[in-house]
Amino acid sequence: MTEVTPRFFEDYAAGQTFTFGDYAMSEREIIAFATAYDPQPFHLQRQPPLHAAHHELIASGWHTAAVTMRLLVDHIVPEEAILPSPGCDELRFHRPVKPEDRLAVRLTVIDARPSQTKPDRGIVRWKVETLNQRGELVMSLISINFFRRRVRETPSGSSRGGGFVDPLPVSRPGVPSKM
Amino acid sequence: MTEVTPRFFEDYAAGQTFTFGDYAMSEREIIAFATAYDPQPFHLQRQPPLHAAHHELIASGWHTAAVTMRLLVDHIVPEEAILPSPGCDELRFHRPVKPEDRLAVRLTVIDARPSQTKPDRGIVRWKVETLNQRGELVMSLISINFFRRRVRETPSGSSRGGGFVDPLPVSRPGVPSKM
Repeated sequence: MTEVTPRFFEDYAAGQTFTFGDYAMSEREIIAFATAYDPQPFHLQRQPPLHAAHHELIASGWHTAAVTMRLLVDHIVPEEAILPSPGCDELRFHRPVKPEDRLAVRLTVIDARPSQTKPDRGIVRWKVETLNQRGELVMSLISINFFRRRVRETPSGSSRGGGFVDPLPVSRPGVPSKM
Repeated sequence: MTEVTPRFFEDYAAGQTFTFGDYAMSEREIIAFATAYDPQPFHLQRQPPLHAAHHELIASGWHTAAVTMRLLVDHIVPEEAILPSPGCDELRFHRPVKPEDRLAVRLTVIDARPSQTKPDRGIVRWKVETLNQRGELVMSLISINFFRRRVRETPSGSSRGGGFVDPLPVSRPGVPSKM
């Protein structure tokens, strides 16, 4: 999958799933990320000291989270319709990520509801699952997202939503899974 | 504060707070992180296009999370006693982080309890708050951490906990706040 398909709030419905991505985790990148942001021995060294909690090199969980974001941006985050996220819940690291692992994302729409206070947007909750090349779950989280709604013509002929107009036809939200 | 003070499970108690760090967010680093992991226009450009959700350059939330981890590792994560974290809850982005912001962390111990199943460790929940140079909250999360317990001599004279021995005297957990 390379196309961004669901874009506006109205494109999302509970139960939709999308699977995408193939991100190769290199030893070099694992060590570079950890050197900058999570310099614990088992994120920096092939053979961490014996007292370390892991005895092999594994990726920082925040690195796995960052790669997951990259896969979301490349494959599904709609630049014209997504608004800043308030955050996420239940971020969990299930299995270590190691050099040469290849990561993909499986996204499931939990629910989608219009904002009670802002008519130009809706709230979509995703379950985001990061999988390795064996299909094993390595990370998961519940993401809270605000999406713009499509601009509708009002009876007076003016549009709401700040003047933004959706310029493209709507494509079907279902996207073939690669995994 | 530059010393790592609380190290083992026994050093933690509900209500303790620690404040540390002074991480300068540069425009260059904000753009480099986003180029790799979160290439949305408002994380890449000083002047994002008008349709973008933000009209100025702000750091990726995952970048702020990674910097927060760096401050935790530099100031409080005890290499000899921390075990892999199962994850975190209630990750929230409260305010944008912008170039030249300086970030610090305020950590509050929510609770600390022995593991019911593994006698060598305990579970400590932290509230982690990331603050900017004005003391404004930019990010928060609840972190779940496993810490090793100090090795105790048993009546038979053998030690439990896999042979790891705490080699250093215990220092007082209270650490002066810098903020």
